[in-house]
Amino acid sequence: MLIVLDAKASIASVKQIQSFLKDHGIESQAHSDLYSQTIVAPNASKKFTISELESFEDVVRAVPITSPYKYASIQGVNAPTVIDIGSIKIGDGSLCIVGGPCAVESKEQLFNIARYVAESGVKLFRAGAYKPRTSPYAFQGLGLEGLALLEKVKKEFSLNIVTECLDNMTFDEVEEVADLIQIGARNMQNFSLLKRAGRSTKPILLKRGNSASLNEWLLAAEYILSEGNSRVILCERGIRTWSDHSRNTLDLSVIPAARKLTHLPIFVDPSHAVGRRDSVLPCARGAVAIGADGLLIETHCQPEQALSDGSQALLQSDFIDLVDQCREIHKLLQGKTTLHLGF
Amino acid sequence: MLIVLDAKASIASVKQIQSFLKDHGIESQAHSDLYSQTIVAPNASKKFTISELESFEDVVRAVPITSPYKYASIQGVNAPTVIDIGSIKIGDGSLCIVGGPCAVESKEQLFNIARYVAESGVKLFRAGAYKPRTSPYAFQGLGLEGLALLEKVKKEFSLNIVTECLDNMTFDEVEEVADLIQIGARNMQNFSLLKRAGRSTKPILLKRGNSASLNEWLLAAEYILSEGNSRVILCERGIRTWSDHSRNTLDLSVIPAARKLTHLPIFVDPSHAVGRRDSVLPCARGAVAIGADGLLIETHCQPEQALSDGSQALLQSDFIDLVDQCREIHKLLQGKTTLHLGF
Amino acid sequence: MLIVLDAKASIASVKQIQSFLKDHGIESQAHSDLYSQTIVAPNASKKFTISELESFEDVVRAVPITSPYKYASIQGVNAPTVIDIGSIKIGDGSLCIVGGPCAVESKEQLFNIARYVAESGVKLFRAGAYKPRTSPYAFQGLGLEGLALLEKVKKEFSLNIVTECLDNMTFDEVEEVADLIQIGARNMQNFSLLKRAGRSTKPILLKRGNSASLNEWLLAAEYILSEGNSRVILCERGIRTWSDHSRNTLDLSVIPAARKLTHLPIFVDPSHAVGRRDSVLPCARGAVAIGADGLLIETHCQPEQALSDGSQALLQSDFIDLVDQCREIHKLLQGKTTLHLGF
Amino acid sequence: MLIVLDAKASIASVKQIQSFLKDHGIESQAHSDLYSQTIVAPNASKKFTISELESFEDVVRAVPITSPYKYASIQGVNAPTVIDIGSIKIGDGSLCIVGGPCAVESKEQLFNIARYVAESGVKLFRAGAYKPRTSPYAFQGLGLEGLALLEKVKKEFSLNIVTECLDNMTFDEVEEVADLIQIGARNMQNFSLLKRAGRSTKPILLKRGNSASLNEWLLAAEYILSEGNSRVILCERGIRTWSDHSRNTLDLSVIPAARKLTHLPIFVDPSHAVGRRDSVLPCARGAVAIGADGLLIETHCQPEQALSDGSQALLQSDFIDLVDQCREIHKLLQGKTTLHLGF
Repeated sequence: MLIVLDAKASIASVKQIQSFLKDHGIESQAHSDLYSQTIVAPNASKKFTISELESFEDVVRAVPITSPYKYASIQGVNAPTVIDIGSIKIGDGSLCIVGGPCAVESKEQLFNIARYVAESGVKLFRAGAYKPRTSPYAFQGLGLEGLALLEKVKKEFSLNIVTECLDNMTFDEVEEVADLIQIGARNMQNFSLLKRAGRSTKPILLKRGNSASLNEWLLAAEYILSEGNSRVILCERGIRTWSDHSRNTLDLSVIPAARKLTHLPIFVDPSHAVGRRDSVLPCARGAVAIGADGLLIETHCQPEQALSDGSQALLQSDFIDLVDQCREIHKLLQGKTTLHLGF
Repeated sequence: MLIVLDAKASIASVKQIQSFLKDHGIESQAHSDLYSQTIVAPNASKKFTISELESFEDVVRAVPITSPYKYASIQGVNAPTVIDIGSIKIGDGSLCIVGGPCAVESKEQLFNIARYVAESGVKLFRAGAYKPRTSPYAFQGLGLEGLALLEKVKKEFSLNIVTECLDNMTFDEVEEVADLIQIGARNMQNFSLLKRAGRSTKPILLKRGNSASLNEWLLAAEYILSEGNSRVILCERGIRTWSDHSRNTLDLSVIPAARKLTHLPIFVDPSHAVGRRDSVLPCARGAVAIGADGLLIETHCQPEQALSDGSQALLQSDFIDLVDQCREIHKLLQGKTTLHLGF
Repeated sequence: MLIVLDAKASIASVKQIQSFLKDHGIESQAHSDLYSQTIVAPNASKKFTISELESFEDVVRAVPITSPYKYASIQGVNAPTVIDIGSIKIGDGSLCIVGGPCAVESKEQLFNIARYVAESGVKLFRAGAYKPRTSPYAFQGLGLEGLALLEKVKKEFSLNIVTECLDNMTFDEVEEVADLIQIGARNMQNFSLLKRAGRSTKPILLKRGNSASLNEWLLAAEYILSEGNSRVILCERGIRTWSDHSRNTLDLSVIPAARKLTHLPIFVDPSHAVGRRDSVLPCARGAVAIGADGLLIETHCQPEQALSDGSQALLQSDFIDLVDQCREIHKLLQGKTTLHLGF
Repeated sequence: MLIVLDAKASIASVKQIQSFLKDHGIESQAHSDLYSQTIVAPNASKKFTISELESFEDVVRAVPITSPYKYASIQGVNAPTVIDIGSIKIGDGSLCIVGGPCAVESKEQLFNIARYVAESGVKLFRAGAYKPRTSPYAFQGLGLEGLALLEKVKKEFSLNIVTECLDNMTFDEVEEVADLIQIGARNMQNFSLLKRAGRSTKPILLKRGNSASLNEWLLAAEYILSEGNSRVILCERGIRTWSDHSRNTLDLSVIPAARKLTHLPIFVDPSHAVGRRDSVLPCARGAVAIGADGLLIETHCQPEQALSDGSQALLQSDFIDLVDQCREIHKLLQGKTTLHLGF
């Protein structure tokens, strides 16, 4: 942390801060000239927030100079993280598409969808057995019964399962079935859940909270990584802004920005971001062109009968079209110069 | 829900939606004239979201016409909810101030602060034993040891304790000590925690999520209320916007807006909202003048030594001053015409 | 407009609104059933805002049912608008790239950049002679002298000139030199300027205000179109949100949303949106893949010497690379099924 | 500006930046230790933006250390600015209330409203002759005819007139009638208009843009002040956020934040901020309690007949009630300790 003091700050103020830092085990150095006084304290950001340091008298500003996360940071890392799920590699430069409905509704629904998802060559299947719903009166998912149906899909269609875990109480049962455990946007700062995910044997798909800064998102990943689970995939799914033409605002430019800071793979979920079927294909293409490692796409055999989020689910034919177009764009861009990689 | 269809929508489209609704147990009525076609389905909002209904062909818009929450709603309620904590009444038109430090740090710190809080006539004491922190490396609270210290404060100073619960695993132990259990902004949509809170014997202080709409906030309260716990206090603590002069943007106008919709008491936490000591007093005064039922104020005997959020904690003298000024404004406004009450 | 009244609203309330509308020349029809009462008034949105109608007693909600703009709307239009600038066509399915520095600084700077822009096959050159600057003390552009230099670039390199007009006083002189007149984000609701632009003989590039909804943006275009100038290009350049990894948040999903509502061409300016050189290439690729008709790209021969916005300007080699990659993506997507076009 | 470089930055990088600064007339000093390298350049912020300085190689961050505005800044100023309008003083610790309708509609309407506004003891009357409207088809104001009617109100009721100017073309005519010229939120960065206002003989009420940071607002004021007009009043009127219970989000905490930076008086316009009649009184009370120097309140004799913004206009009786309550709160707080004043 770089602590900027008022040019007229007394030596006593400077010394007070330095001795406070020392009491907490942090070495620092002071500089001054005619116009400014600064204290450089490289490890202070690990113990104190900016506002805590700015609470001292005469402090004008505290500025982070080192990364607040260790495991999520690109610093000292030589290559992007690659995550294996079955025979699939994620983060190695390939494009990973995940398809399926919002929620598990019935065996028939699941099998109908899984069939065409598998036929399209997609290897990961998504569907929620536990659904976080804004209203206590909305459909909350089939729970254990839903997990059992996902287990059947896995065997019947050789698909890997991506499904959400909502809390620590149901973590074990989700972990048993899922090949990739999703932590949803609303739980991005559910720290107890993040710690449990950090002790999981399965990789974690960590969705960005709808008001989370990039820094907060990487710190949420750090909660998982620092507990020992190194297999984390980030997933952008739209942020909450005043812009009202789509449900959330898809923040695609977070991808190049994140590349500069982290080695973790980044997915995009255009379905939840926009919440409108007709925008999913163009946004998916944009996500691939901008450099996403993967996509989460909602598809449903009968969107108008879906128990949740039917308005954003693609029909079978549109899903196939999306998969094809995205693969073509991805193929075209292989080997192109990219300015945005930190490596 | 009022479902607006394209003026050129076919009768078949209208019939399809009506029979879909009927399959889910919802009666509806259709109207049409030269310029529009509409379907009125009063209970559809309990089963379907707006976007689900907008996913049907020819649907232009779906508009809620009834409240999506039942227990939190002012409809059919004759008086504001009043909550008793010890000898204190909350929501009866009086002003309830809660004071204390951000976190429990030590017995000495706690007693020093509790002493002047109690002397000021404040009856509720706040301090966190479990702290939700953005970084896994920041101070996470003293946990059980912190709860034990709060128990001591309670006995020594006859103060009621307000403290945060972060997860279901520690709910029982927090419930034993707390007189009012806080659910923090990051957990406003941690639905498992809300359900557990709904089965608690203690009242709940539900902070607004930093990107939660008023509707989502009331639906989070509904999760608690619908499980049987009728004692919920809402607490505005700032929302995340691009405005950068304060940590969050204190959304005080949510108070009159909420009064029109709900009978629950509403508190304001100016300390977390602004994150700057010098703005806490004016914002607290504003909150009282706008009609808040209570305030959460951070105060610390030695803010520059605080382990978290020191920059927003008031010194003893400023805290006393704030309590006095807020009480005077509150007293002045007793009995004034207020346009904003739903009652 | 569809006006929803309380189910218990009196007939008098309904009649009062209908006669008020009639006084202002608007015919309406009323419907009622057990659960709701509604008034359908198709042209009310042209005279009244939503909140004006919601101010009547017993009105629960007013909902627009027709488009508030006429000339900008896709309704009744059979094909996208195509705009000719010299030999270039914009909006016909081709990709139009505009390159150049933020500001005109000197003849040498301009010619150096124009040379490689022209060599890359780009036909439109951008540079500001008048610069809107947040601070009165920042470089405000060379003004008339800058326009004269742009005139020279036009002749020397056969490039079409895109340059910004800030106010009505300088409109004539900008109009003389520019082939495409830019109205910047800060001026999107400078209605006097929009009306003047509506009487111009030159096409207008209308940037989206940094807090403008899609609806407000199209209404700003309507100001120009309704004065008689049918040649308007929309340009997304990022919106202001709390997300802090880029200067603004590039809202790419506005493109498919706009396609559903308007026939006007849409450009994207990734340089101003992100404000970071390393994100410009990926975001430009994303914009093309999502369906933009054109791009505005900042490039500078010596970014570190630029008098404004040097941090986002691409070096020559990166600019050439961007042009090549974007053209390849655009070519690949020719003829692909797109779900998002209104036509 | 404090420029933070990578700890591994070469001496050449440091020297390059220093010589670049010197070329532009800015002296700087460099510091380095094991963990950081910094350049202190006190006046760089007057010539370069943060992102321009961050575009140099090896620069990690540029941090302002001095204020970017001179005349608007509290630095070196000993007392708040007090502005005289007729016999009224603004900014001297008194409370200034401005009342009136959104727009001039007719002589009858204006006189009816002016009568009770004057009787309430309010000395400033507001009404727009020129109205900025999102849609070209909405009522745009009576223009010159409206100004003539305001002139009549002024004489008949001895009220001072506050009215908006939209552009440079109509500035002279507005200036002749107005005692306080309003620049609206949409024009906050209409720099030509700001410069003209800076040469006016009348004081200026500068509304905050709906997406303007405090810094940008003060820089907009600086445009006026630096042209020679020292009489500027700031006016908070709500900002655009995703929070949807009110039209805009009233950002009251900007008042104490602004007090720390500027000596200019600050008003609040709760009517436009919330856009709902029932929230205006509580928000006005909040504004006074938080420390506003004045209020802009919309009132109308027949809100349901208003040609614009009727939904937020107060009835006569509610207006009188508001004036009374706000004066009582203001009186109560006279002489109270306030932490938030920069003086």
